[in-house]
Amino acid sequence: MAEPRSDRTRVRREPARGAYDRATIDAILDEGIVCHLGFVHDGQPYVIPTLYGRVRDELYVHGSSASRMLRTLKDGVAACVTVTLVDGIVLARSIFNHSINYRSVVVLGRAVAVDDVDEKVSALEAFSARLLPGRWSQARPPTATELKATSILRLPLDEASAKVRIGPPKDDEADHDWPVWAGVIPLSLTAGPPQPDPALEPGFEPPAWSPAHRAAQPPGQNGQ
Amino acid sequence: MAEPRSDRTRVRREPARGAYDRATIDAILDEGIVCHLGFVHDGQPYVIPTLYGRVRDELYVHGSSASRMLRTLKDGVAACVTVTLVDGIVLARSIFNHSINYRSVVVLGRAVAVDDVDEKVSALEAFSARLLPGRWSQARPPTATELKATSILRLPLDEASAKVRIGPPKDDEADHDWPVWAGVIPLSLTAGPPQPDPALEPGFEPPAWSPAHRAAQPPGQNGQ
Repeated sequence: MAEPRSDRTRVRREPARGAYDRATIDAILDEGIVCHLGFVHDGQPYVIPTLYGRVRDELYVHGSSASRMLRTLKDGVAACVTVTLVDGIVLARSIFNHSINYRSVVVLGRAVAVDDVDEKVSALEAFSARLLPGRWSQARPPTATELKATSILRLPLDEASAKVRIGPPKDDEADHDWPVWAGVIPLSLTAGPPQPDPALEPGFEPPAWSPAHRAAQPPGQNGQ
Repeated sequence: MAEPRSDRTRVRREPARGAYDRATIDAILDEGIVCHLGFVHDGQPYVIPTLYGRVRDELYVHGSSASRMLRTLKDGVAACVTVTLVDGIVLARSIFNHSINYRSVVVLGRAVAVDDVDEKVSALEAFSARLLPGRWSQARPPTATELKATSILRLPLDEASAKVRIGPPKDDEADHDWPVWAGVIPLSLTAGPPQPDPALEPGFEPPAWSPAHRAAQPPGQNGQ
């Protein structure tokens, strides 16, 4: 297991759950739907859900919701991007040992606004490719005006850490006779039947989306 | 629709998506599994996934992962708690109008460490009741030592706002003939078959967990 890149990304609480290798980090980032972007404005932290994508060693996030607060900071702003996948509810025999199975990534760094149009296009393509493989080449491409109206922020993946809880509950030895069911209720984000736009003309098939279309997960990472 | 309680909770980006009434806010809070807690340490924002629960007008969050940074701040620390429910991927005819259907709540305020034991118990019971109705009375209750080891933070729900996107894509009129499927792929967090603890003795039935066990959603809020 790789070492953390900085002291502030080291997992302190339950350190055995920490991981710092890029394979683990990238697999979690590639599977999430939204991230939570944290930044500070007038001493107040804000946490905003938004779209994101990874291009090699850079993380790109959609910054429009935060742009009122971030747009004056041309040289970047201290930010944190967190992606969390909830994999299950862990039912222990004791209330204290109840938990959640999850995989999360925390990225710390300075978020910089992307001005270069080609870089913006690459970022948007990464958002699209992760959630909807093939969609980028089928939909109407962004115009120069739309790209100008799109705010994208970039963070390097230098300071990132993952935290993973998998497996059954860990009860105290003394609790093993407590008369209650114990185990895991696995949870996953599941797609329902596609809902066509009411204005859609006949003759178009929806994409067959499922989490399986997303990045393959490393073995042993998804529940037990 | 209620007005925002403070200027800093007003939804600026897509203001029609903003909601400030407690019924909308509470329904989202009561349905989520984890929240994302944001706080600042040495000028750096941190965003940590953690458990939470609501007791009337107070939000409680599990603070152990953040306790190293927060424990010295007895008079509270500026915090943000965000809960996001992802309801679908919105496929527009243009890349620009692609979106996510979601319901989110952002709570701003000062997070204060809870020292009172009875208040800690109430908070833990709220965590449990929301995720696993009935479980609290079946599992082994927390001991005094366990309660001491549990860090809980409290924020008032005074400064909270919701943001909701529902419904089909909103394409530009000029794009309606673009030859591609458009609509929504609905997503929901779904439970799989319960996985018993390998050490479980025979004779115990798992709880029949499903999102339906969670708070009823207001009509029209869940997808189209």
